Amino acid sequence: MKITLKEIASLVGGEIEGDAGTIITGASGIKEAVEGDLTFLANPKYAPLLQTTRAAAVVVAKGLKIGSACPMVRVDNPSFAFSKLIEIFGPKKPEFPKEVSKRAQVAPTVKLGKGVSVGPFTVIEDGAVIGARTIVRSGVYIGHGTVVGADCHIFPNVTIRERCAIGNRVSIHSGSVIGSDGFGYVAVKGVHEKIPQIGTVVIEDDVEIGSNVTIDRARFDKTIIRKGTKIDNLVQIAHNCDIGENSIIVAQVGISGSTSIGKNVILAGQVGVVGHVTIGDNTIIGAKGGVSKNVPPNSYYIGIPAMEGKAFKKVHAALLRLPGLIAKVRGLDGKAAGRGKGGAGDAEAADN
Amino acid sequence: MKITLKEIASLVGGEIEGDAGTIITGASGIKEAVEGDLTFLANPKYAPLLQTTRAAAVVVAKGLKIGSACPMVRVDNPSFAFSKLIEIFGPKKPEFPKEVSKRAQVAPTVKLGKGVSVGPFTVIEDGAVIGARTIVRSGVYIGHGTVVGADCHIFPNVTIRERCAIGNRVSIHSGSVIGSDGFGYVAVKGVHEKIPQIGTVVIEDDVEIGSNVTIDRARFDKTIIRKGTKIDNLVQIAHNCDIGENSIIVAQVGISGSTSIGKNVILAGQVGVVGHVTIGDNTIIGAKGGVSKNVPPNSYYIGIPAMEGKAFKKVHAALLRLPGLIAKVRGLDGKAAGRGKGGAGDAEAADN
Amino acid sequence: MKITLKEIASLVGGEIEGDAGTIITGASGIKEAVEGDLTFLANPKYAPLLQTTRAAAVVVAKGLKIGSACPMVRVDNPSFAFSKLIEIFGPKKPEFPKEVSKRAQVAPTVKLGKGVSVGPFTVIEDGAVIGARTIVRSGVYIGHGTVVGADCHIFPNVTIRERCAIGNRVSIHSGSVIGSDGFGYVAVKGVHEKIPQIGTVVIEDDVEIGSNVTIDRARFDKTIIRKGTKIDNLVQIAHNCDIGENSIIVAQVGISGSTSIGKNVILAGQVGVVGHVTIGDNTIIGAKGGVSKNVPPNSYYIGIPAMEGKAFKKVHAALLRLPGLIAKVRGLDGKAAGRGKGGAGDAEAADN
Repeated sequence: MKITLKEIASLVGGEIEGDAGTIITGASGIKEAVEGDLTFLANPKYAPLLQTTRAAAVVVAKGLKIGSACPMVRVDNPSFAFSKLIEIFGPKKPEFPKEVSKRAQVAPTVKLGKGVSVGPFTVIEDGAVIGARTIVRSGVYIGHGTVVGADCHIFPNVTIRERCAIGNRVSIHSGSVIGSDGFGYVAVKGVHEKIPQIGTVVIEDDVEIGSNVTIDRARFDKTIIRKGTKIDNLVQIAHNCDIGENSIIVAQVGISGSTSIGKNVILAGQVGVVGHVTIGDNTIIGAKGGVSKNVPPNSYYIGIPAMEGKAFKKVHAALLRLPGLIAKVRGLDGKAAGRGKGGAGDAEAADN
Repeated sequence: MKITLKEIASLVGGEIEGDAGTIITGASGIKEAVEGDLTFLANPKYAPLLQTTRAAAVVVAKGLKIGSACPMVRVDNPSFAFSKLIEIFGPKKPEFPKEVSKRAQVAPTVKLGKGVSVGPFTVIEDGAVIGARTIVRSGVYIGHGTVVGADCHIFPNVTIRERCAIGNRVSIHSGSVIGSDGFGYVAVKGVHEKIPQIGTVVIEDDVEIGSNVTIDRARFDKTIIRKGTKIDNLVQIAHNCDIGENSIIVAQVGISGSTSIGKNVILAGQVGVVGHVTIGDNTIIGAKGGVSKNVPPNSYYIGIPAMEGKAFKKVHAALLRLPGLIAKVRGLDGKAAGRGKGGAGDAEAADN
Repeated sequence: MKITLKEIASLVGGEIEGDAGTIITGASGIKEAVEGDLTFLANPKYAPLLQTTRAAAVVVAKGLKIGSACPMVRVDNPSFAFSKLIEIFGPKKPEFPKEVSKRAQVAPTVKLGKGVSVGPFTVIEDGAVIGARTIVRSGVYIGHGTVVGADCHIFPNVTIRERCAIGNRVSIHSGSVIGSDGFGYVAVKGVHEKIPQIGTVVIEDDVEIGSNVTIDRARFDKTIIRKGTKIDNLVQIAHNCDIGENSIIVAQVGISGSTSIGKNVILAGQVGVVGHVTIGDNTIIGAKGGVSKNVPPNSYYIGIPAMEGKAFKKVHAALLRLPGLIAKVRGLDGKAAGRGKGGAGDAEAADN
């Protein structure tokens, strides 16, 4: 890579400040940048780093004031513009042959679209359909009758059980399991009898699923992940859940059965949601929150059990003052006792 | 599927209310049901849905009053009866050839029972034993000397390490790892030296293990999961644990080393249990609970650290009132101060 | 195994108390020990078990007083000494042929050190390097250009993506995924556009990684796990994290992006750490703690959000007294009200 800042600016439709002839030889984050690198500034919190960065130039938001002499390209969305540049100049992605490995086991009734790649030691069962240009890597299992759309990337060692439906441009990272049996039993004379889980999993277009995620099949109908939603690593989604469009489910979140999550929802890391509740559109649940009932749209909830964010802040601040409060009440009680006997002494007994 | 309600009733030993000649053409949940479907009502909370369901008939508990003209089959346990019917009428389960795939690698000393199925790209090491009719799917690893019982189902991409013992009718879902080394080190001059984990894992009859679960082998003896216990996805069970019979371990629970869990225990989602403690029989730990010491039998504990459920409820309700309490004490203090100076002002200083 | 206590003592440089001729025929934990077994006592809490153990002899710390007539070997570190003995007398570890299985798919450009073992159904892509004596088991995936050092053990069904660097003497247990894409998107007109993750993962010497762990590749530079650190099962480490030397990350911990963890840190089970913070050297975070900001070195933090351990203890103890406190304040308020009206009544209204 060797390119002028002027060329960079034209690739992303940006405006140059400083020397348009600056030579760019690489791209990197603001801390890691070495001489000749292009970097970017998305979070104004990191602006002071521009004083010390070794980068040759920076992609930065229009209108953001930064006291730096570093040559700049001004764009609307620096992170997005930089991503586009990285795709052009970054390390070459590994390529996979557009053919079925002789060491894969693909049942004769499987329908493969044009340009499909199937890696070695992968099993695709009877009646499955794989859309055009989809890459199914090695060690993958795709069950009977499962349909995978076009332009998907199924990474090594993924398991997708029978009768699931995966949309277009879906990525599923290694170790994830789609369509396992939902966790359902009925107690009969003290023994847990398995409830058959005959439903399926539907994953719509443009969903990305991280590594070692588990998404269970529905009891009857379908567990559904709607289009554009992104799921991080080690997330658990139980049977019959309905996850709305363009939501973000961060790592180690667990969602219990039959729960509905709206559109544009963010569940931060390690959140847990009980079964049979609804979280409204555009709502954010803070990290480690435990959602135990319906949450309205456009809210921010946090805590265990989760409560409205402002209430949580107030309660938590109060909690930190509690040891002092107890001392103060003891003082007040002492004064009250000094003036006469009262019922408060009984409360003291209940105090332990 | 095309069958009369009368035939349905006879299959599950139920009593008909309404038209015994009602034709059933499918089966589904109460919300998803379409015309001709049989549905069921297990949770009385959903009874109002019977007013609007399109189902042709419903399986319902004896004695439960429901204001609906929908034809019914009355049984003792609707969920269980419906499960039986689903097994008869539901989608056909995939079948796997009762033979060893030529693409599996099964060591010559492995003993296989009658009717065993071994999928492609599966490895079974020297000295392992696989019981009759057990299905070992593709991409599975079964280590040296491990014994798997009869009628088990080991799903794709499961790993079972050496010298483990799996009972009869055990299901282990995809991505789970049984018998990894326990997490044990001893600090020697600031370096963590590994403690050998020479024990094993024993999984008794009728246990079901979800996807991407990890169960570590014991340091010396055995980590044991007793009969009839059901384990959900992404659960961690550390070395030397003893999990009692017919317990339910919900998704993302973590149990630290050498802990004993009783019979018929329920650990709800994302519960954590410290090492070297005991949870008594029939106890329930609420979701996200953090168990830090022994819990007696027949209890309900919740919270971090976990406490008795009623105490938790009281403390939590009090916590929500805390901001108001602080305001009230400030008021009382003001009144007290108005009447004379006291020590409470010092408590105020400790208040921050 | 049949050996005298005298020989045992000489193997670990210990001092004998009692009959040096005691015959040892096995080794086990203090509870599981049977006749003829050697056992050990590391945790003084278990000393009373020496009264009832059936063990023939015990390895115990110098200077520890135990009221038992059991023959002993006194050493500095009983746990470590016993581990050494177990390696000599324990069950033989499975061995793997020092060759590449014909059923592995190893690209022609892969460089293999001396004595490397590659199991069946494993894929090693172009440009990868595997160091001497490293064991790569079955069903493993190693991506393009990834370098694995010498004397490593990569267990079955592990996935290591392209361009990662693994040091020497590293163990990675089954189901773990190293080098998946970091979880990064930028919102463009309501749609989450993927941010390319072109960095890598570096795992230094003597690291052990448990089962079903996920470690994401960096956005630009590297996610790094420094030497000697041990990671338990089901841990999530996000992109750009820097985990210091000799740290212990217990099961189900989640560490968000760009966070730095110091040396000799312990993160207990189910801890969560937000992104872009630093945890200082030698710090311990208690189980289930939620770290939301920087934590200084040499500290103990716990709670959600995590706070200094002593403060947490004080606050938690106060919390348990809160229901009693509310009753007491009601009593005080009643007395105040009896003496005259005040503003506290308004606070009562705010109380719900």
